[in-house]
Amino acid sequence: MPTLKNDRFLRALRREAVDVTPVWMMRQAGRYLPEYRATRRKAGSFMSLCQDPELACEVTLQPLERFPLDAAILFSDILTIPDAMGLGLYFEEGEGPRFKHPVTDEAAINKLTVPDPGDKLRYVTDAVSLIHRELDGRVPLIGFSGSPWTLATYMVEGGGSRTFSHIKAMMFNRPDLLHKMLGVLADSVSVYLSAQISAGAQAVMIFDTWGGSLSPGAYREFSLSYMSQIVSKLKSDPATCDIPVILFTKGGGQWLEAMADTGCDALGLDWTTGLSDARARVGDRVALQGNIDPCVLYASPDKIREEVGNTLASFGKGNGHVFNLGHGIHPEVNPDHAAALIEAVHTLSRPYHQ
Amino acid sequence: MPTLKNDRFLRALRREAVDVTPVWMMRQAGRYLPEYRATRRKAGSFMSLCQDPELACEVTLQPLERFPLDAAILFSDILTIPDAMGLGLYFEEGEGPRFKHPVTDEAAINKLTVPDPGDKLRYVTDAVSLIHRELDGRVPLIGFSGSPWTLATYMVEGGGSRTFSHIKAMMFNRPDLLHKMLGVLADSVSVYLSAQISAGAQAVMIFDTWGGSLSPGAYREFSLSYMSQIVSKLKSDPATCDIPVILFTKGGGQWLEAMADTGCDALGLDWTTGLSDARARVGDRVALQGNIDPCVLYASPDKIREEVGNTLASFGKGNGHVFNLGHGIHPEVNPDHAAALIEAVHTLSRPYHQ
Repeated sequence: MPTLKNDRFLRALRREAVDVTPVWMMRQAGRYLPEYRATRRKAGSFMSLCQDPELACEVTLQPLERFPLDAAILFSDILTIPDAMGLGLYFEEGEGPRFKHPVTDEAAINKLTVPDPGDKLRYVTDAVSLIHRELDGRVPLIGFSGSPWTLATYMVEGGGSRTFSHIKAMMFNRPDLLHKMLGVLADSVSVYLSAQISAGAQAVMIFDTWGGSLSPGAYREFSLSYMSQIVSKLKSDPATCDIPVILFTKGGGQWLEAMADTGCDALGLDWTTGLSDARARVGDRVALQGNIDPCVLYASPDKIREEVGNTLASFGKGNGHVFNLGHGIHPEVNPDHAAALIEAVHTLSRPYHQ
Repeated sequence: MPTLKNDRFLRALRREAVDVTPVWMMRQAGRYLPEYRATRRKAGSFMSLCQDPELACEVTLQPLERFPLDAAILFSDILTIPDAMGLGLYFEEGEGPRFKHPVTDEAAINKLTVPDPGDKLRYVTDAVSLIHRELDGRVPLIGFSGSPWTLATYMVEGGGSRTFSHIKAMMFNRPDLLHKMLGVLADSVSVYLSAQISAGAQAVMIFDTWGGSLSPGAYREFSLSYMSQIVSKLKSDPATCDIPVILFTKGGGQWLEAMADTGCDALGLDWTTGLSDARARVGDRVALQGNIDPCVLYASPDKIREEVGNTLASFGKGNGHVFNLGHGIHPEVNPDHAAALIEAVHTLSRPYHQ
């Protein structure tokens, strides 16, 4: 393994001292970059891009060529697991993800099994190995997966949803079935993240994009408890226990204490929760990652700098902050504005670490 | 004015004793009712239905014919004010609201003026008067408006949005312009709600559907402060000061204390905040309205009853709870399930009021 030249990100996740606050951006390899759009055209479809390790590596590294980011994140989709289960993931142009074979009945749930990451998900671990090699220790590489609840929402709804009618009907009418499905998904995510770690991922993040659609009780029962199982498995295995785990429930600002109780290393925050509040509530137990509104990048570079300053001040002095957006960067953003954000984080954070 | 035969709703808003917990449902006059769909067909478009006081009255009363609800709510749209400002509200079949003339520049903002509710919004106050007369004191009538921030999102985006890119770009780049627009909107909402009260509305609710898309600081500056202005105006005018005001920010569970500070009488809650938590935080100052997940209505009547029991238990004994969904009822819901919910609220809540 090459020695890490920049370990700020991993140090911040362990709440150790750093020279400046590390920064990366969700969807930093994405449509706002012209070089990404070029590779995407070359690949044909979004899924072809994800499934070609060479091209996935190429786009993963693109933002690092432009910006002094402190971490790389595997280029992939959150829905690779259900695709490997045989649901047939596809993307309509201008639409979100869809499944050819959504999970609509008990028989479909009974057929679900944990995909072998060495088989149908081999393209992911191959990409991780390749990216890790190409990075050559420049910055750490983040692996990731969707949370069991989030995967289940797409699998049952057949795609994105505003109301989650089908999966919530199942939750109220047949909680036994939903628990069965979530159990298989939790095992799948554990195995999948372990495989990414074996291939070279130096931190992992679980994206619970839709946990915030639940009531507090339902969140604990149907989303958090399965993320907690995954954290426990990773933390009890000598091969993975040293790898920091980041949990991110979009819209989960009311439940940070319970999330920290899982034993994860860091929480991702969207912009609806103040970092100072979050730190007061859980900052003695976990690192915090976030949380500027991605729409800040529509502002002028001067205003971006001002907003970065406010976010840094909200966390304050001390260890345990990874700067990030509160959600993925929007496709229309000017890359120069992303550069301004990253530069401002590194410059303005220095006094907080002295 | 006819004497109110059922004043549970108003008593609960004032945190006075009641025999059973009052209940109404957001969008209780809506597409889940076959009789609504029949009237809607008769009207032609959604806007024709809103703009015809006789038909608006008819659909407002429909759910009360079926169910022992404790309040009626004016049938209208949250976007009547920008329509009256000349933006040209219309609805595409299967799409959300759209504006023919969105607010895209400074000149458009400078042209915005407070609509006279006796002129372009006369159809609303006429509907309120008619409904109030037809109700004949059976239950109280709720008037409503969108919040200034929520109206502004539709006006600037030209319709619904997932990211609020345009209005947030304005927020960061030209906060002065956005404040100007929000000031005109706050005055407009104040005058509009006063007119609804003069016409017979016995409580008013401000729907801040998109306040939850903001950071804590931006929420206070761009949404809450304008709702606060409206509450102050209504509370300082002898003609409106006795009318309870309900504030509802969807996704605003983290900011209840600040919302209660406005001097409003009640807070609407979505299902992501527990009623027991909310009560501990602000229940000594305001009544609470909510907050069951509308997807509960996809469950069996037995399960609905169980979930109603959980929600009532979460609030516990004592005064100040108005039962409601945490968001509007979904169009696919079986009306018998709505009946089961209402029946369960009245039956199961009795012990909490003894």
